[in-house]
Amino acid sequence: MLEQLKEQVCEANRALVCHELVVLTWGNVSGIDRDSGLVVIKPSGVPYDSLTPEKMVAVDLEGNVVAGDYKPSSDTPTHLLLYRTWPDIGGIVHAHSTYATAFAQACRPIPCLGTTHADLFYGEVPITRSLTKEEVDAGYEINTGRVIVERFAKLDRSHAPGVLAANHGPFVWGGDPAGAVENAVALEEVAKMAFATVQLDPKVGPIPQHILDKHCSRKHGPGAYYGQQ
Amino acid sequence: MLEQLKEQVCEANRALVCHELVVLTWGNVSGIDRDSGLVVIKPSGVPYDSLTPEKMVAVDLEGNVVAGDYKPSSDTPTHLLLYRTWPDIGGIVHAHSTYATAFAQACRPIPCLGTTHADLFYGEVPITRSLTKEEVDAGYEINTGRVIVERFAKLDRSHAPGVLAANHGPFVWGGDPAGAVENAVALEEVAKMAFATVQLDPKVGPIPQHILDKHCSRKHGPGAYYGQQ
Amino acid sequence: MLEQLKEQVCEANRALVCHELVVLTWGNVSGIDRDSGLVVIKPSGVPYDSLTPEKMVAVDLEGNVVAGDYKPSSDTPTHLLLYRTWPDIGGIVHAHSTYATAFAQACRPIPCLGTTHADLFYGEVPITRSLTKEEVDAGYEINTGRVIVERFAKLDRSHAPGVLAANHGPFVWGGDPAGAVENAVALEEVAKMAFATVQLDPKVGPIPQHILDKHCSRKHGPGAYYGQQ
Amino acid sequence: MLEQLKEQVCEANRALVCHELVVLTWGNVSGIDRDSGLVVIKPSGVPYDSLTPEKMVAVDLEGNVVAGDYKPSSDTPTHLLLYRTWPDIGGIVHAHSTYATAFAQACRPIPCLGTTHADLFYGEVPITRSLTKEEVDAGYEINTGRVIVERFAKLDRSHAPGVLAANHGPFVWGGDPAGAVENAVALEEVAKMAFATVQLDPKVGPIPQHILDKHCSRKHGPGAYYGQQ
Repeated sequence: MLEQLKEQVCEANRALVCHELVVLTWGNVSGIDRDSGLVVIKPSGVPYDSLTPEKMVAVDLEGNVVAGDYKPSSDTPTHLLLYRTWPDIGGIVHAHSTYATAFAQACRPIPCLGTTHADLFYGEVPITRSLTKEEVDAGYEINTGRVIVERFAKLDRSHAPGVLAANHGPFVWGGDPAGAVENAVALEEVAKMAFATVQLDPKVGPIPQHILDKHCSRKHGPGAYYGQQ
Repeated sequence: MLEQLKEQVCEANRALVCHELVVLTWGNVSGIDRDSGLVVIKPSGVPYDSLTPEKMVAVDLEGNVVAGDYKPSSDTPTHLLLYRTWPDIGGIVHAHSTYATAFAQACRPIPCLGTTHADLFYGEVPITRSLTKEEVDAGYEINTGRVIVERFAKLDRSHAPGVLAANHGPFVWGGDPAGAVENAVALEEVAKMAFATVQLDPKVGPIPQHILDKHCSRKHGPGAYYGQQ
Repeated sequence: MLEQLKEQVCEANRALVCHELVVLTWGNVSGIDRDSGLVVIKPSGVPYDSLTPEKMVAVDLEGNVVAGDYKPSSDTPTHLLLYRTWPDIGGIVHAHSTYATAFAQACRPIPCLGTTHADLFYGEVPITRSLTKEEVDAGYEINTGRVIVERFAKLDRSHAPGVLAANHGPFVWGGDPAGAVENAVALEEVAKMAFATVQLDPKVGPIPQHILDKHCSRKHGPGAYYGQQ
Repeated sequence: MLEQLKEQVCEANRALVCHELVVLTWGNVSGIDRDSGLVVIKPSGVPYDSLTPEKMVAVDLEGNVVAGDYKPSSDTPTHLLLYRTWPDIGGIVHAHSTYATAFAQACRPIPCLGTTHADLFYGEVPITRSLTKEEVDAGYEINTGRVIVERFAKLDRSHAPGVLAANHGPFVWGGDPAGAVENAVALEEVAKMAFATVQLDPKVGPIPQHILDKHCSRKHGPGAYYGQQ
C-alpha cells in the first residue's frame, strides 16, 4: 500500500512540471493512506526530474519520518494539519503557480467570473489572512495550515478544493494526489483567465448567481451529469 | 462513413490539446454526417490522451445515443441545436481557451482591430446575452444554443464562424471538425492580440472599414484569391 | 542556385513555427537570387508542416511564376516591391506575431526602451500610415509595399531592418531568408518586452541617447565588436 | 580542471535555452576557477545549439584570452569586474529574460511581494543607475560592472544574488555556473509574478517584514532548514 502511494505521489510531483505549475523545486504534492495514517510527501529541495518512488518520504500524522532517506518537504507541517483536520481529503498540492500566486501576493481572492471557475469553485477562491509575527515565530508552517483551516470556519468546504495563502500561493486538495494536481491545474488556469478579465474590465462583477448554481450542480452533488456514470 | 467521422472527430478533439486550446477535459469537438443526420461527439469528461475513435459517441439530431459505450459531452444539446438550425455547418468546437474566455467573462465582444481578425471575422466577434434564471432552469445547454442563434438573428452569419457565450467561452464552427478547430485556433489568437492591443490603447477604435472589406473579400466570397485555387 | 534558394526559403518558413511567430498559415518568408532576379516564396495557404523545397514558388521581379506548381503567397506583390526598391536585402518575413501585431493594431511605433531593442533598431520600430480606400482598391498588396517604402523616405534604412504595417503586422528583412527570420524573432521579443514595460510605466521614456548610440555601434558599423571576426 | 569548467559553462549556457531565458544569442554564462584565476565564458554571438565545451573561451582576470579559438562574449569585462570584486562568487549569468528586462527598462526595482521572492532575495531586487555618457564612452562594459558594484556599496550583498542593470537587463550570480542559472530562473519567475501582481493592484505594498525575515532564514544562514542537510 505504502509502495503504491509512493508511486502515486512521485508521479503527481512530476506532473507539476508537465503542467507548468512549478519551476526549480517550488512545489510539492503529498498523499495519505487513511488506513495506516501515513502521509507520503516529496523530499525537500530535490529536483523533480530526479524523483523516484524510493526517494519519497513517509511520515506519520505527527510528522515523524517512518520511511525514506530524505528530509520531507519543509511544508510538511502544513500538509499534516490539513490531513488531521479534514478526514475526507487524500492528496494535497502546494505550488507557486504564476497567476494564482499573483492573486495571493495582491492579497485578493479570485472572483468567480465565469463557468470555467464555477465548474470547480462555488464562488470566489478564498484567501487567508496574513500570519502575524507571533504566528510566524511560533511555527510558520503549522500556522499556515491553521489560517487555512480558520478561513474555512464559516465556509462550506465542499465549495472550494483549495485556497490562496496570503503573500504566498495556492494550497489545493483532492481525493488523491492526482486529483489534487488536477484541481491545481484548474485553479491556475482560472486565475489566468480572471487576471485577463480584470485587465479588460477592472469593475467586472461576478457571474450571475443562477449560472453559478447551475454549473456547480452540473458537475457536483446528487444531480451531477457531467462525466461518465 | 460513421467510422470515418469518428476518426475525424477524435483527431479534432486531440488537436485541441496540440493547439493549447484546452486544459484537463475542458472542451469538445463534434462533427455531423448530413446524409444520415448523425452527430459524432466527444464522450463527457474523458481525457484527450485516452481518446480513440471507438470511444466517440454517435447521437441523432434529437440527442439519442445510437452508437458508443460512453455518455456524450454534456454540451451535446448546444451542438445539436446549432446543427439543426444551420444546415451548412459540419463541425463545432467548444473550448475555454484563455483569451476568448476572458472576453466572454468580461461580457465584451472582441473588436476587430486588425487584418488578422478581418481575415476570419467580418467585424467584431459577437457575444450572446446572459441566460436568465428561467432559461437555465428550463434547459441550460439547449438554451445556450438558443441565445447563440438569437444573437445571429440580425447578423449575416457568413460574417462570423463563431461566437462568445457570455460568462462562458467560445463556440466555433466550420465545414468539418478540422475546419472548426482551425477557426477556434484563429479566434483564440485574435483574442490574445486584441487583449494586448486594448492594454496598449484602451480607446483603440476598429480597423478602417475599407481595410476590413478588403481582407474579408480577399479570403472569402467569389473574388477570393488567398490560398490554392 | 534556385534549388538552394528553395531549400533556404522552405527552411526559413518552417522556422517561423519553431520560433512561435505564426499560427495556422499566417506568415511567409521569401528570398531572392540577385543574379537571376528570381524570388522564391511560400505557396499561399499551405500549412508549414507540409512544406518542401519543391512546393516553393519562384517568381520574377514582376511577379510572373517561373517555377512551381502552386500559387505564390498573396503577399507576393509587397515582397517584390521591397526587393525592387532596396537592392541590398536578400530575404523578407511577414508574420502576425502577437506583440508586434498588437503594436501595429494600436497604430503605435515600438519605442526603444532598452538595450535589447537598441541592438537591432536604432530608435523606435517605425510604423506606416494606414492605406486609403483608393490605395486598397487600386492594389492592396503593392500599396502595402509602397507605404512601407514611403515610411523610410526620411529614415536611414540601416537603422531598422523592419517595420510595422499599420492595422496589420510586421514586415522584416535581412541579408538572406534566415537572417530575416532572426530579425523577426528579435522584433517580436522586443515588442513583448516593450508591452510589459509600458504596462509597468505608461509614461516610460526612451533609452538615453548615448546608450542607444553605444549599443548600435557595438553591433553594427565599422567599429562593431560583437560576434566573431 | 579547466576542461571540467568548460563543460560546466557550456552546459549552463545551453540551460538558458531550456529555461526560456534567452532567444537568439542574447545571454551568456561564465564560471571561474579561483585556484588558477581563469574565467571560462561563452564565445560572442555563437548560437547555443552549436556550443561545445571546446568552443568556450578561457580568459584571465584581466581579460587576456588564454585558451580557445573564439572571441569571448562582449560582456566579458562586466563579468571580470564582478569576479575581481567579489571573491565568493563562482558563476555569472547575463540574460535579457522578458519580465526582468521589463523592470530594468522601466528603471524600477522588483518589489518583494511574496514568499517566492523572499526565498531568494531579502527585499527588493536592486537596480543600478543609468550609465552617464562619459562612462559609456570610457568603457561601456566595465562601467556596467562598476555601477553594479556601486549599487551594492550600502547593501548587504548576501541579500541579493543578482541585480537589474538599468535600461538593460539582469546580471545574476551563484556559487558556480549552474547555481547562477538557477538564480536567473528564479529571478525571471519572480519578475513575472511581480508584473502580474502590480497589474492586479498598482499600489500593492511589500510583503510584511516578519514573513520576509522568516522565508529568508528558512532557506539561508545558520538556521536554514529547507532542502537536504
